[in-house]
Amino acid sequence: MAYPGYGGGFGNFSNPMPGMHMHVGQPVPGAGPAVPPSGCPAYPPYSDSYPPAGDPMWTYFTAVAGQDGEVDAEELQKCLTQSGISGTYSPFSLETCRIMIAMLDRDCTGKMGFNEFKELLAVINAWKQNFINIDHDRSGTVEHHELNQAIAAMGYRLSPQTLTAIVKRYSKNGRIFFDDYVACCVKLRALTDFFRRRDHLQQGMVNFSYDDFLQGTMTI
Amino acid sequence: MAYPGYGGGFGNFSNPMPGMHMHVGQPVPGAGPAVPPSGCPAYPPYSDSYPPAGDPMWTYFTAVAGQDGEVDAEELQKCLTQSGISGTYSPFSLETCRIMIAMLDRDCTGKMGFNEFKELLAVINAWKQNFINIDHDRSGTVEHHELNQAIAAMGYRLSPQTLTAIVKRYSKNGRIFFDDYVACCVKLRALTDFFRRRDHLQQGMVNFSYDDFLQGTMTI
Repeated sequence: MAYPGYGGGFGNFSNPMPGMHMHVGQPVPGAGPAVPPSGCPAYPPYSDSYPPAGDPMWTYFTAVAGQDGEVDAEELQKCLTQSGISGTYSPFSLETCRIMIAMLDRDCTGKMGFNEFKELLAVINAWKQNFINIDHDRSGTVEHHELNQAIAAMGYRLSPQTLTAIVKRYSKNGRIFFDDYVACCVKLRALTDFFRRRDHLQQGMVNFSYDDFLQGTMTI
Repeated sequence: MAYPGYGGGFGNFSNPMPGMHMHVGQPVPGAGPAVPPSGCPAYPPYSDSYPPAGDPMWTYFTAVAGQDGEVDAEELQKCLTQSGISGTYSPFSLETCRIMIAMLDRDCTGKMGFNEFKELLAVINAWKQNFINIDHDRSGTVEHHELNQAIAAMGYRLSPQTLTAIVKRYSKNGRIFFDDYVACCVKLRALTDFFRRRDHLQQGMVNFSYDDFLQGTMTI
């Protein structure tokens, strides 16, 4: 049987979470966008699937992307800020944008094409909705136990010790801000995908060489 | 034989690097501060080894640490800025301070005591000297191939693909700033220590469970 603790894919919020007025996912192994089985295969930044005339996201994106049709982390930060996706929350930090790139960077260029950008927006919107539902007093921050519950509700089966360590890492003065919340979600998703791609037997165990371990974890 | 590719410990710059007017390390397995064999044992933030009267670092530290005698990432950022250790380079970002804490956080509190702080300063000073020697034109940035060479010279034996991915990850507009350089060194050291503590046969291979993998990599 496939390992059930890898979480519900990118923002795959489909089943009700106890005590929350929104939908978050139960474990759905293999859900979310398709990921290559391993390594970084050739992956065209553009496809024939969009002549996105009239798409406002396309306007933000092309204004920043320039001739190569892809954005790096600094450019992604501009795109996201201009798109207003953070709403009343602070804009995303460069560090968070870097791990967003790493999460979807299937061709290992350190950049992101328009299709990946659209995919990212959908994920961020799902996480944002989740955050808004937790952030009852609209303070822009949530508490430790709320992030703890959200991670568990996304389908990640982690030990209490690991959950505690993760939540502590993304806190500032005992609370979690929106940017750090998203950074945590992105990193959790990206590291899980990296691990899962190498877990050929889908048993929750992977034998890593030092080089492969660092290639994945240093870049996320 | 112990795996020789884990790098030379914290700022263990002892042997000459070709083409550089400074000293950087060859692989010295097991060098650097002692690390616990696994997990997070109890570790007192204070020891009897210092009544640091007259130590200027103690002044910076205690002014910020408060009653618990330890600093979190925000407080560490203040301490490092006040100590002037970045010199003419930009002060360290909060993200870099967070991974500095993770590198030395043997008791898993998310905080750092004075002994760890002193240890950190020594490491940063070694890395800073390294950076100054690479940054020939004093621009505050270095080039890709220079960080590449520096990582290799510290004793890390990584594939060209992994080195390229790491260097790209820590670049801004094609160059590496001091803060990102230090963040890269800290993360490389912390992830290597995490991996090495689990590599009981010291052969450069580790079988990770998903939970253990995330506990180490999400917090660094």
